[in-house]
Amino acid sequence: MALKTNRKTNYPEWYQCVVSEADMAETSVSPGCMVIKPWGYGIWERIRDIFDERFKETDHENAYFPIFIPLSFFQKEAEHVEGFAKEMAVVTHSRLTAKDGKLVPDSELDEPLIVRPTSETIIADSFAKWIHSYRDLPVLVNQWANVVRWEMRPRLFLRTREFLWQEGHTAHATAKEAEDETKQMLEVYREVAEESLAMPVVVGRKPEYDKFPGAIDTYCIEAMMQDGKSLQAGTSHFLGQNFAKSANITFINKDNKPEFAYTTSWGVSTRLIGGLIMTHADDEGMVVPPKVAPYQVVLVPVIKKPEDEDKVMSFVNEIYQKLRAQTAFGEKIRIKLDKRNKTSVDKFWEWTRKGAPAICEIGPRDVDNNGMMVRERIKLGTPEGKEIAKTEDFIGTIGQRLETIQHEMFARAKARQDANIRTDIKTPEEFKAYFANNNEWIEDGKQGKVAFVRGKWNGKAETEEILKSMKINIRCIPFDQSGATGKCLLTGEDATLDVIYARAY
Amino acid sequence: MALKTNRKTNYPEWYQCVVSEADMAETSVSPGCMVIKPWGYGIWERIRDIFDERFKETDHENAYFPIFIPLSFFQKEAEHVEGFAKEMAVVTHSRLTAKDGKLVPDSELDEPLIVRPTSETIIADSFAKWIHSYRDLPVLVNQWANVVRWEMRPRLFLRTREFLWQEGHTAHATAKEAEDETKQMLEVYREVAEESLAMPVVVGRKPEYDKFPGAIDTYCIEAMMQDGKSLQAGTSHFLGQNFAKSANITFINKDNKPEFAYTTSWGVSTRLIGGLIMTHADDEGMVVPPKVAPYQVVLVPVIKKPEDEDKVMSFVNEIYQKLRAQTAFGEKIRIKLDKRNKTSVDKFWEWTRKGAPAICEIGPRDVDNNGMMVRERIKLGTPEGKEIAKTEDFIGTIGQRLETIQHEMFARAKARQDANIRTDIKTPEEFKAYFANNNEWIEDGKQGKVAFVRGKWNGKAETEEILKSMKINIRCIPFDQSGATGKCLLTGEDATLDVIYARAY
Repeated sequence: MALKTNRKTNYPEWYQCVVSEADMAETSVSPGCMVIKPWGYGIWERIRDIFDERFKETDHENAYFPIFIPLSFFQKEAEHVEGFAKEMAVVTHSRLTAKDGKLVPDSELDEPLIVRPTSETIIADSFAKWIHSYRDLPVLVNQWANVVRWEMRPRLFLRTREFLWQEGHTAHATAKEAEDETKQMLEVYREVAEESLAMPVVVGRKPEYDKFPGAIDTYCIEAMMQDGKSLQAGTSHFLGQNFAKSANITFINKDNKPEFAYTTSWGVSTRLIGGLIMTHADDEGMVVPPKVAPYQVVLVPVIKKPEDEDKVMSFVNEIYQKLRAQTAFGEKIRIKLDKRNKTSVDKFWEWTRKGAPAICEIGPRDVDNNGMMVRERIKLGTPEGKEIAKTEDFIGTIGQRLETIQHEMFARAKARQDANIRTDIKTPEEFKAYFANNNEWIEDGKQGKVAFVRGKWNGKAETEEILKSMKINIRCIPFDQSGATGKCLLTGEDATLDVIYARAY
Repeated sequence: MALKTNRKTNYPEWYQCVVSEADMAETSVSPGCMVIKPWGYGIWERIRDIFDERFKETDHENAYFPIFIPLSFFQKEAEHVEGFAKEMAVVTHSRLTAKDGKLVPDSELDEPLIVRPTSETIIADSFAKWIHSYRDLPVLVNQWANVVRWEMRPRLFLRTREFLWQEGHTAHATAKEAEDETKQMLEVYREVAEESLAMPVVVGRKPEYDKFPGAIDTYCIEAMMQDGKSLQAGTSHFLGQNFAKSANITFINKDNKPEFAYTTSWGVSTRLIGGLIMTHADDEGMVVPPKVAPYQVVLVPVIKKPEDEDKVMSFVNEIYQKLRAQTAFGEKIRIKLDKRNKTSVDKFWEWTRKGAPAICEIGPRDVDNNGMMVRERIKLGTPEGKEIAKTEDFIGTIGQRLETIQHEMFARAKARQDANIRTDIKTPEEFKAYFANNNEWIEDGKQGKVAFVRGKWNGKAETEEILKSMKINIRCIPFDQSGATGKCLLTGEDATLDVIYARAY
């Protein structure tokens, strides 16, 4: 019952196949936009709730700002508009009118409106109104919203014209406080990525040429996908006084002098679901880490003869009620009792493709034995994949079981990443030879043909051309620098900066 | 410390004043759109979570559909496009280009895209893909999203060009199931409005001429504001097979025959916050019902001499920790310890204007007496408004106290509504005389000059003209019909239908 294609044969097709077979999302009549289906959206709700809790713990409040940004507003920060101008949805009219039997746009707006690709400019306008004195600082807000960037090659979750995200925006009295905030939120991203999404990441700073348009510094978390490519999974920007100057966010400081505020912004998006898929899914479909699974346990009644129905259903209902009282990760576990009018085999494969962490099949003989067949998604196809369990044992240990699965999923992904950050490539020749290979699927526990290289860079902007010609990228300048001098892997010059080179999504 | 204006003097200005002084929302550089500030958004988050739980209990799943609807798609249902064409934001270009030193829209789209005013048409397209057999039905989805309607006279929360809402969309195998769903969700709306928002409503069906464009029947909840006007607070539509036909949502029924599905849609929006304000706010500012208050209890330390700080803060912190363990309405209570660098008097008035249900002021003498000054927002200005409480008593009874406040707020609003649905107006003459008055603020426990009239209607479309000329409206045909014959209040003809006549927002 494997998917139509697999990771080794055709990785990009496999990805689409997982999204579709796990019933997570689909393309839409709205060009380049996606429909996020209930299973995909359920994962997003979990991710959102986990981040939201972290944001609130770190004293941020949610707010909501308009989706439309007047063109003139967007233009205030020169680098910023430059960075986004080529991919903006522009609203120019406010009604439709019939003309020759066809509806056409009518009532042209005095000023075109941009559908927000990000909200720095419009939020800065509110900040300028809200902030007067150092006593008003810091301002710490976040918004959960949809944004639009006119991508030319859309891919579900990874790159769609509309996507869902959160964007944090803060203003501070000093550069240091703003930089601390930027790094604090990056650390929240790392922690949630690793601890909840079971997705190991490399943390660091973006090179100058790859910063967010208008930022002083951009920090990021980068995750290694199963084909060795990197996915930028979250970014946090120190904006200095750039946006404060263009929007006039000033405050009276403690010395009673007017000063521009220091701002930050940071975001993660539904792209994380793409990362989740390419970190954990296998040739049978999706595998969802328990912490973000909409249902952690699915109960599938196995009823082949109508006369067994009452017996099985009353037993399954009893298990369902007992499971509802159990907890994992400090909260109630999420269980689905699948009563739909379909065969148990169809249900099993459907939940397997969706990647529910544990599926329990329960038939008449299980009732007699007070047992069930437990199938952990991560053990599918292995001898332990079909496990006969006593119901009490299963119910009593479900929290522990889900925690073990979560831990195991992270450990697997971390081992893959660790084995595939190459640090033994020391010269431009070795470097070129390495990236001359094509990316392909990295088998669990193995070293792939191409993935990440950690090595030296001379830090010069000109080297961007060399990277472009090789179709690779400097993903980040990791925080943990050795400080040692070596050879720049692009030019052979002396260099001390350690960077992560990789291909990327 | 009353607001700049009050309900009696200038009701519309008072409304704006509450929104602004309670720090709930503000107008924006984006014309007609609003910024929902943290306190307003916090209320929305509570409302959202309460509804979301009810939707999930009634087996709905959340999903997300594109914000852009291709023009041709929107046109598929004739009445529907007719109803919305005059207020649509239209995207016509996908980038900006510099021209004579100015950025202008570029890359015109082949087909204009509509920013969704509602999503029936685009969701119907997905339903057509998802539904094949009666076994696939019902499909029960909901989405939390922003929508855009090009309002010409925007008012914060009540009517803004962009607003936040939920829209439920379902498909069923029979008309009966779809009608049951429509009414079930209306009942969810009534229940949450009354039990969580403490906002009494009248439930019923809209007259034919006031239905949702494309619907067979529209049901609604209508709430009486403090000026006697009605606010449509939620609607639920039975769409019959109209959208199924235009989008080709067909299924093979149990008799193995193809059939069009029956669909529904239903929504509530951030407009509810406008309803909340005009149900509960007073001349001092907002009053938030405890169930939807972002903070139910605010602790304000009163420190006038620096040497008192340690003493007071350690006492307040202790109270804070003990309160955190308390519950109200079955969940942990939400407390704010306001440590900001402002005077306690400023803090008290700020939280009063925001409408936090209970504010506790704690100074050095309270520490000595193991007490606090408790101020319930609904008792502000009354002799009970300043209450000295022992800390243990306050902590031990906080759940009960919040429940009492919630109950009291509903009782007050319900008494106002009950006293102001006039049933004693029996002739067109009396009716005209009544609505010849202007709406004005209805004092608690009193009968206002103009509010709702419950009386007869002949059900004829022509009477819409009479209503228009009087600037009133039939808000709904309540479910509880007397069946008795009387005189139509518009024409004097015999009529049996009971309706609610009122002015409206």
